[in-house]
This record gives sequence, structure tokens and C-alpha cells, in this order.
Amino acid sequence: MSSSVSPLAPKTVPDMPVIAGVRLATAEAGIRYKNRTDVLLAVMDKGTAVAGVFTRSKCPSAPVEWCRAKLKGGKARALVVNSGNANAFTGKTGRASTALTAKIAAKAVGCSESEIFLASTGVIGEPLDATKFDGVLGRLADAAEPGDYLAAAKAIMTTDTFPKVATATVKLGKAKVTINGMAKGAGMIAPDMATMLSFIFTDAPLAPAALQALLKSGVEDTFNAVTIDGDTSTSDTLLAFATGAAAEQGAPKISRASDPRLKAFVKAFNQVLANLAEQVARDGEGARKLVEITVEGAKTKASARKIAMSIANSPLVKTAIAGEDANWGRVVMAVGKAGEPADRDKLSISFNGIRVARSGARDPDYDEAQVSEAMKAPEIAIRVSLGLGKGRDRVMTCDLTKEYVAINGDYRS
Amino acid sequence: MSSSVSPLAPKTVPDMPVIAGVRLATAEAGIRYKNRTDVLLAVMDKGTAVAGVFTRSKCPSAPVEWCRAKLKGGKARALVVNSGNANAFTGKTGRASTALTAKIAAKAVGCSESEIFLASTGVIGEPLDATKFDGVLGRLADAAEPGDYLAAAKAIMTTDTFPKVATATVKLGKAKVTINGMAKGAGMIAPDMATMLSFIFTDAPLAPAALQALLKSGVEDTFNAVTIDGDTSTSDTLLAFATGAAAEQGAPKISRASDPRLKAFVKAFNQVLANLAEQVARDGEGARKLVEITVEGAKTKASARKIAMSIANSPLVKTAIAGEDANWGRVVMAVGKAGEPADRDKLSISFNGIRVARSGARDPDYDEAQVSEAMKAPEIAIRVSLGLGKGRDRVMTCDLTKEYVAINGDYRS
Repeated sequence: MSSSVSPLAPKTVPDMPVIAGVRLATAEAGIRYKNRTDVLLAVMDKGTAVAGVFTRSKCPSAPVEWCRAKLKGGKARALVVNSGNANAFTGKTGRASTALTAKIAAKAVGCSESEIFLASTGVIGEPLDATKFDGVLGRLADAAEPGDYLAAAKAIMTTDTFPKVATATVKLGKAKVTINGMAKGAGMIAPDMATMLSFIFTDAPLAPAALQALLKSGVEDTFNAVTIDGDTSTSDTLLAFATGAAAEQGAPKISRASDPRLKAFVKAFNQVLANLAEQVARDGEGARKLVEITVEGAKTKASARKIAMSIANSPLVKTAIAGEDANWGRVVMAVGKAGEPADRDKLSISFNGIRVARSGARDPDYDEAQVSEAMKAPEIAIRVSLGLGKGRDRVMTCDLTKEYVAINGDYRS
Repeated sequence: MSSSVSPLAPKTVPDMPVIAGVRLATAEAGIRYKNRTDVLLAVMDKGTAVAGVFTRSKCPSAPVEWCRAKLKGGKARALVVNSGNANAFTGKTGRASTALTAKIAAKAVGCSESEIFLASTGVIGEPLDATKFDGVLGRLADAAEPGDYLAAAKAIMTTDTFPKVATATVKLGKAKVTINGMAKGAGMIAPDMATMLSFIFTDAPLAPAALQALLKSGVEDTFNAVTIDGDTSTSDTLLAFATGAAAEQGAPKISRASDPRLKAFVKAFNQVLANLAEQVARDGEGARKLVEITVEGAKTKASARKIAMSIANSPLVKTAIAGEDANWGRVVMAVGKAGEPADRDKLSISFNGIRVARSGARDPDYDEAQVSEAMKAPEIAIRVSLGLGKGRDRVMTCDLTKEYVAINGDYRS
């Protein structure tokens, strides 16, 4: 695993408030790692609503299949997450492992197995020995406290170099409600979230359908607009839990996502998702530069997204940024390969606000020395104007460094 | 540019026979490089048929646009190729540059400008000063001889570490006809050929339409089945020239690609394309392993191709191979992200003939030590069986190494 923290890590970590109805505990179960926590148990009060979005991989992991099936109930009492082993492509053993984990957790928490949600991250294709949870989950259920989200975020890390948490507090009716989130990256991150796990907790009283609608809409411009290497994991899981405890402080019960009382909440909820998604990009494997790609003037937003993703996933663009080279020719290449409407002779491209190309050729005022200086910044904004329409979108990625190759060439060994 | 030859380079270089009706010459025009040839002129006899396939980039280079327009005539008298500057995304200057180059070449050769074909490779976005060809092309036209294909292949190299040539001789009717080819890679190689230039010459008497049909069909399982980094260049150009000189030895004139007399020729033609395409993969930037990916049991061949390309373009699969790690979990990931029909629990995967996964889980007989030893080979064959249908396809790629990042992080500087 990486030993040094990403230079792009946020400078400060927020204080994470308690959320009524949620208790957390972590342990060292020895799944794969030594001397670090690798299992998280979150226990939620009765009546907690759950929603989720998952990888679109055609070969999802066993825990993803488990969660998809259990989501129909809309209720959750516990979340069990382990790091070190993804329980993916483990066949019947994998399904047996999720069933056994859920059984152990249900007994520990005192609920139905269908109220248990599971996520696993780490190596693919290795059987996960769920008997390791026996005893551990019982102790965790006893020890769980309303509390340490940072410790929870640490327990779910794999090649992440820093734990990722975010929080927001907002009014819902007359009550103050809280949204806490955590996430882990760090490679195999592409739209539809990839090796990413993220868990959101709130005390807002939201019905499962409302929470699901919020989540589905919220990921579109946050987690689904982040890519590290274009690879999509078998295990992407984003789960949201709403305990409803704020109803006691007068928060209204919300059954529909379109409820106008939810406006401020939706904004705060999406900010938490955006914050976590950006942290994932900041912790891309081997990343030294955070890259924001804005495409404007496209025919449609969907077209802008496709072009932005083509740029964000281009190894040649990403290695150029690693080399602090404002190689806009490669940006043109990536625009061209996206297959979306583009007119070479209307293209403009800028790096960190300095226009390097316009109207299909090098900008005559383009000063290589000035741009080279700008490329030394840890955050690079690439803006592409297509000049065709009003479609606009923005995605986040990071550069492609030798460190990425080193991390992924030695991951298993 | 890279200084050491790829360890995957072919051990021997074929003797390239002369092709009647084709004369070649190279020169140092100082386009960008010092002390090396960077311009190739091929002069063809009157009556030479031409065909071409090009990048599908929406932002093609000026020479690609030039060739597309001139292909309609079906006749060629000269080919001018320069390395060091791609004349791509150079706006009006780029179009003026192709027009001037063609004008100079037409004068040098004594033909119409519409019989001149152009290709440029190298940096994108820098104006190409075509006045550098003035004088040079005249001297080259005088010096051109029926001959040195290896020297020609050297003149068109950019980050290639070795020149790429291939040849075949075959009967057409009672005459012996020859097919010679050359190509350059080496990064930005994806389906639809990417930074790839390739030129095929034959003395077979083929009508332009027949040659075009052969070429279009031939690239499908050769050049279009090779990917280095998934990036598609603005400049991909594959041109084929048929002088027809073999008619004098009794070769029949062929007007349709479906002509049964062409059977042996088609096979040899496709072998030349396949040979060159494989050499491109062997010279992928930073490549240390040649990787052949076969997908079988897919619903259709198109589905198999899409899955094979998803595996071939996955940075995580490619870095694992660089690390000599038989990380079949990442192969599953890449199958899953392709979006094509796949049943996780029917998947089998092997590396160099050793089955590591079957029926959705690790093969119980899988011996890690044996596979680790096999992964040290310079050529890695990944075979994925989906167990769904009869669709089968095969693509070639290479591994992703730190050297790739180094080459592309420093390309312009």
C-alpha cells in the first residue's frame, strides 16, 4: 500500500458531528492487512430508511448483489464493511460468504438479515472467509458508539492515502439535520463509481423512495463525474441511511424527493457527495495533480460529458499533465476520439485560464513560458469550448504517473 | 525519443524486394529532428490505383482531409510523408501547408496535385512549414530508386524504436506479384489506427474500388484489432498503392475484390497488414510484453471484440501484466465494464494456457507459482471464455509501464 499521503489531500479534516440513530465501531479482523482496522460496523436505529446506487459492471461482486436484493425492503439496521478482500468473482463461495456475514451481523444487532447491508473492497477473486466476522461483529455491536466517523473512514481504506469524510448541517423545517459521509477510492474509478465505497448518514426523516431519488440524482454530477483510470470496479457501492431521528426535533417526514421543503437539504446532500467525490480524485493512485475538465459549447450536456470523459480518461492527456506539459494537441485528440459533434476549427482550449488554442489553431498570443509556469500548480483546470451549442459539463480526474504503474504493478505481490 | 530498441522487436528484418512502378527516396528536411531522415517521397508510375482508410477522429489532421478528398480520383503518382510534425490542429495554415506540399510534389514528379497523397506524423498543433519541402522534393524525385523500403520505414518513425516492414509474394493468375508494407506506431494507437501511418505497395493490377474494398476488409482484424493506450490519433492513415506493373507478366486485371482469382492475394495482403499491426503492438511506447487477448463464447463477434478491447485498454490489466501478475480479477473487472452480455459465473480465464479461473471463481487446480513463472514470458496470451455463444475475437496490445509514462510525460519538452 502507498506509504505517503497524496499531496492533493485536503489540508483540514472536518469535525464530524454525531448523528442520532447511528452508532459506529471498527476492528482488526485480519482479513488481509496486519495492524490496522479492516472492518466497520454501523448500527442504525429501527425505522432507518436505506437507498443505494451500484456499479453497472456486468460482473458485480457478491455484496453488490446482496445489497441490490435487500434494497427492496427499504429498511436498514446495520452496515458491515470490510477492506482487504472485495468478495468479487468468488462464485458460490462469495454468495455463501455474504449470507454468513449477514447472519452473524443480524444476530449481533438483533434484526432481520434483510436489514443488513454489506460492502467489501480489496482484492478480487479471493474467497472471503466470513467466519472471521464471527465474534468480531458481536463485540462491535456492543462497542458501537455515536461517533468516530474518521475511524470508520480509515477502516474501509485500501490504497487510499487518506481517509475521506465530509459533513453538512442544514435546516429541514424548523429542525437542524445533519448529513455525514465517508468514502474510499482510489484506483479503478470510473463513472458508475468503480472501486469506490461511500456511505452517507443523516437523521433527516426521509422515506426510502425519496432517499433513493435524491441519491440517484445526486451522483450524476458528483461521483459519476469522477474518473481515475477509466476502469470500473465490480464493487462500487454508495449507500445512504436516513434514521429519521430529527423528527423528534420537529423535522417534517418527507415522502417525495420533489417536496419543496427539501430544497436546502438536497443542496447540502449534493455538496457532501461532491466533496467526497473530489476527495476520491485527490487520492487517485499516484496522483500529483487534481484535474478539472470543463467542456462548454457542446450540442448537449450529455455530449459535453462524453467529451470531458474522453479527455479525462486519455492516458496521453494524463501523462502530459504529469509532465507539466500543456499539450493541448492531445486534448484535441481526445475531443476527436469521443465521437461527439465537434468542429476542429471552432475549438478553443485553455489551461488554468490561459488560452492556448482558438479557432482550430494555436493561440497567437500563447506564451509557452507562462503556460509552463501555470502547469506547475497542483490543480489544473482544462477548459474546452466547442462553439457549437449550449451543452456544458465538468468532470474531475487526476494525472497518470509512474507511481500509478508502480502501485498497480505490485498490488497483489 | 526512445533510445533503446523494444525487447519485443522482431529478431529478423525481411529482405524487401523491389516493386515495379514504385521508386523511393528519403531526406533530412529538418522538420523537427536533427541528424535523421524525416521525409519520404514515393513515386509511382502512371496508372497506379490508390485506396485509403483513415482515423475516425472528429478532428482529423490537414493531410487526412487532403487524402480523403483526393481518394475520389482513385489514382496516385506520389506519396509524401514527413515525421516530426503531424500538421494537425493547425487551422488554415495546415490546409495551406498541405496545398503547398502537394504543389511542390506535383511539380517535382510531373503530375496533377490531385495525384499527390500526404501524411504527417509527430507533434500536434504546431504549424508545418511546407517551404522546407521546396527543393527537397525535387531532389528526391530525381534520386528515387526502386528500392530501399527499410530506409523509407526509418524516415517515418517518431517514438518508434524500430522500423516496421513486411513483404509477401504470391501468384495472381500466372504472374508472381509482390506486396510490400511499412508502418509506424507507437503511442496513441487504438482502433481506427491512431498515430499510425502505414503504406502498402503492390504491382498487382487492381482497380481502385477493388483495392479499397480489400483494404477496408483487411484492417478489421489487423490494424483495427490493435490498441496501445486507447487513444486515437488525428492522423491515422493507411494507404495502399497498386501500380499494376505485374500485368506485363500476365497478371489479370482485377476490378472487383470478390474476384475468385484474388483469393491467394487477399490472404497474403491480409498477412502483410497483420504482420505490420503486430509490429506496432510490439513497439508500443514503453512496451515490455506483447499481449494477445482472445475472447470466445461471446454472443457475437462484435461483442467479443468489445470485451477484448475493454480488457486491452484497461490500465489496471496492463499494469498488472507489466508487474508479471496474473491478476485475473482485473480481467473480470474489464469484462464487466464492457457492458456486453456476460455471466460472471460462467467465465473462464487463462494466462498462457494456464487456467486460473472457471465457473465464476478461482480454478481449484490453479498453481500461483506456475502462473507466476509463465507471466515472465515476453508474450502473454489471455484467453477469456464467456460460455454464452459462438462469438470469438482476438486483439493485440502491450503492457503499461513506467517507461510509457516517462515517454509521454516528456514528449514535447
